Amino acid sequence: MQTYLKNGYIVSMDQQDTVFDGGGVLVEDDRITAVGKVDPRLVKPDAEVIDLQGKYVLPGFVNTHVHTSQQISRGVGDDVDFICWLHDRMWPFESNMTEEDSYVSTLMTSLELIRSGVTSFAEPGGQFVSGMARGTAESGLRGKLAKSVMDCGEGLPEIWQRTMEQELEQQVVDLEKFHNTADGRVQVWFGLRTIFNNTDELCVRTKELADKYGVGIHMHVAEAKEEKEYTYARWGEGTVKHLERLGVLDKNLLAVHTVWLTDEELELFKKREVKISHNPASAMRVLGFARIPKMLAMGLRPSIGTDGASSSNHMDMVDEMWLTSLIHKGWRLDPTVVPSQDILRMATKWGSRALLDEDLYGSLECGKKADLIVIDPHGPSMMPVNDKIAALVTAMHSANIQSTMCDGKWLMRDRKILTLDEEAILKEACDRAKAIYKRAGIELPDRFPVVKV
Amino acid sequence: MQTYLKNGYIVSMDQQDTVFDGGGVLVEDDRITAVGKVDPRLVKPDAEVIDLQGKYVLPGFVNTHVHTSQQISRGVGDDVDFICWLHDRMWPFESNMTEEDSYVSTLMTSLELIRSGVTSFAEPGGQFVSGMARGTAESGLRGKLAKSVMDCGEGLPEIWQRTMEQELEQQVVDLEKFHNTADGRVQVWFGLRTIFNNTDELCVRTKELADKYGVGIHMHVAEAKEEKEYTYARWGEGTVKHLERLGVLDKNLLAVHTVWLTDEELELFKKREVKISHNPASAMRVLGFARIPKMLAMGLRPSIGTDGASSSNHMDMVDEMWLTSLIHKGWRLDPTVVPSQDILRMATKWGSRALLDEDLYGSLECGKKADLIVIDPHGPSMMPVNDKIAALVTAMHSANIQSTMCDGKWLMRDRKILTLDEEAILKEACDRAKAIYKRAGIELPDRFPVVKV
Repeated sequence: MQTYLKNGYIVSMDQQDTVFDGGGVLVEDDRITAVGKVDPRLVKPDAEVIDLQGKYVLPGFVNTHVHTSQQISRGVGDDVDFICWLHDRMWPFESNMTEEDSYVSTLMTSLELIRSGVTSFAEPGGQFVSGMARGTAESGLRGKLAKSVMDCGEGLPEIWQRTMEQELEQQVVDLEKFHNTADGRVQVWFGLRTIFNNTDELCVRTKELADKYGVGIHMHVAEAKEEKEYTYARWGEGTVKHLERLGVLDKNLLAVHTVWLTDEELELFKKREVKISHNPASAMRVLGFARIPKMLAMGLRPSIGTDGASSSNHMDMVDEMWLTSLIHKGWRLDPTVVPSQDILRMATKWGSRALLDEDLYGSLECGKKADLIVIDPHGPSMMPVNDKIAALVTAMHSANIQSTMCDGKWLMRDRKILTLDEEAILKEACDRAKAIYKRAGIELPDRFPVVKV
Repeated sequence: MQTYLKNGYIVSMDQQDTVFDGGGVLVEDDRITAVGKVDPRLVKPDAEVIDLQGKYVLPGFVNTHVHTSQQISRGVGDDVDFICWLHDRMWPFESNMTEEDSYVSTLMTSLELIRSGVTSFAEPGGQFVSGMARGTAESGLRGKLAKSVMDCGEGLPEIWQRTMEQELEQQVVDLEKFHNTADGRVQVWFGLRTIFNNTDELCVRTKELADKYGVGIHMHVAEAKEEKEYTYARWGEGTVKHLERLGVLDKNLLAVHTVWLTDEELELFKKREVKISHNPASAMRVLGFARIPKMLAMGLRPSIGTDGASSSNHMDMVDEMWLTSLIHKGWRLDPTVVPSQDILRMATKWGSRALLDEDLYGSLECGKKADLIVIDPHGPSMMPVNDKIAALVTAMHSANIQSTMCDGKWLMRDRKILTLDEEAILKEACDRAKAIYKRAGIELPDRFPVVKV
């Protein structure tokens, strides 16, 4: 089965970042079979032919850090301090979720991801990989799923007090059951929550297992100032140096947030080819400024993630790209740093590299997976498009994402979700959210006086 | 003619910030005649009755700083340094605009404003108040329009080299012609571009004229680090202290950006009741962090503006509210500063106060102008709505703005613009943008290699 997208502005993100103006993309089954100037003889008589009339085609965005299990908690921790957020809001919410809640929350996340042009994501861990795997399989997206793994730490809810052996065993069970299911779209990685919640031995054993299974490790690294203070007090070094000493720092480690890094730790990232996920909205909420300008200058290739709906209410890569284009300029007082070109790389091919899938997707190239999006700039929020590439970062909204294809299959076309029953999921997600808030005893105070009429 | 919006979540933004859950708003001609629990005997038999089914109603947003003349330049200065932005891009663009260009650019801005829930704005100055006035009148929005006034400064395009007398005279002519036209929606203010481009005498004379005509003065104040260096080198004080010494600092001064302020200058703002417009996206591009947390703690009431499309490509108050909720937390490393409640105040009633129209709009109260918006949270980017007030700031997108009413008249309903021919404007704006780029000799370099197919 062929789909031929013709007459587009094809932003291939290939090695040279070639743009084909007036070009096409030919898709056969799950693969791209031609890009740019497409030989008409390759197009079969029964191919579906879509005239893009100049619209953009890009690789699908890669969201390298999104907590699908937190989606239905949205709003749980707005404007409160970290301790309240964690102890009174987030932990009670997450520890009161069922496997079915996790499944529905993943479906809900998928809707927002597909609508904002994401085709592939990495999940740092809820408690139920099975629920997340079901949801991801049904959504049509690609996901690297991990459990939220904790074998130590102060004040954890009782239900989460598990031993290292239990945590490792569970992950191996999940991995053997779900890894490479749904035509390979669902994959299972190992998870390390944070240095606060993971023993050294767990870190080391996790690295051994990840190598054995040939998968990645997803970990929050050098996230908050408190983490830096903790690791220096305990080991006289930062998280990254500590992981290096444990032998965990390697090319299959996806390090998320990475805000509080020394120059030496950045050099270690480069040397070990550690993968980086920058989450600007969540960083702005409480973490601080990741050193993205410095990373780019060093030749590191960070990616972009949205974090979870408890930490940032937008699971929207388009918004995160915009934020990435703003906050570093403001922080450095230099409007030339972190230009739009790098941000597009971060959101596409550097994302696929962070997920160890550089050869599979993240660019529009012959032989790669057909993970792509069609962008319609029409409307007063993006037009006039005077700088075509910058506009994708500095002016676009997710509402401009017209269609999303993953693995050769349309997940959304003309803003209509095709793989999921959107209305049914919205309703169920809201019902379940209400029930969890109730079970967990979380009551959000009214911000304004409310009169019931 | 009556419109009765019933069964809504009415966020009135009145003095107590009362919310009416399940309440209504009754509109008669251009005014609100009842809010909250509406006595059914007030509703006439021929009233249009709209069942909101729980949707939000808010006052229309007030955008206190938007360059309508820059709208069609969008993308002209992305990722370039300040000098390139100003001398090679912005000045050539703006100085090559005609009165008709300014009119079309204003229409184009209006589309984006209406779509993002704005009902009222302040314009800091293109060259053609007449063009902006025509556009604003047709759009159905309220605008405070000013000329971009310059009577000194290095390197200005020849066409802009005008004397103080010429600049003052032009403004008086415009004011007498356009002030309080279009049922009072179009008003004319005085403009001061920046301390770099305005002589002391012009500042003083402008203040006298503004007082005489009972209107405001719109000025970029303490914008960039370079401005601080300039004023200290020249007068040994900041812009605000200098304006105080000139007698210009007063309650009818709308000071925009206000990034580089000392504690003493903030105190002067408070003492003189100076109005403040915070423009977070544009500040992040190059200016730095305005001291919003400190201002709020002092009891100052800043408002929000989007700046122009040359400085920030989003003329979208919803995006600016989100940014406002993020950047100060990140900068202060304190997630409790600048809470959603204050951001809603900034975008509504503090905005109307900044435009000297506190008694006229900015809240839903009996007797006020019917400037309001209907917000539909339906969809995966805003639901589940667990924190109803915060969600308006931390999760909403402008796509959730369903309908916009100004002066009792629907400008947009169910996402359809009613006052303007959107498609015709989009086309003309793009054509005119292309022509101005050509006339001005501005060529934006390709960011990626482009192959024409």
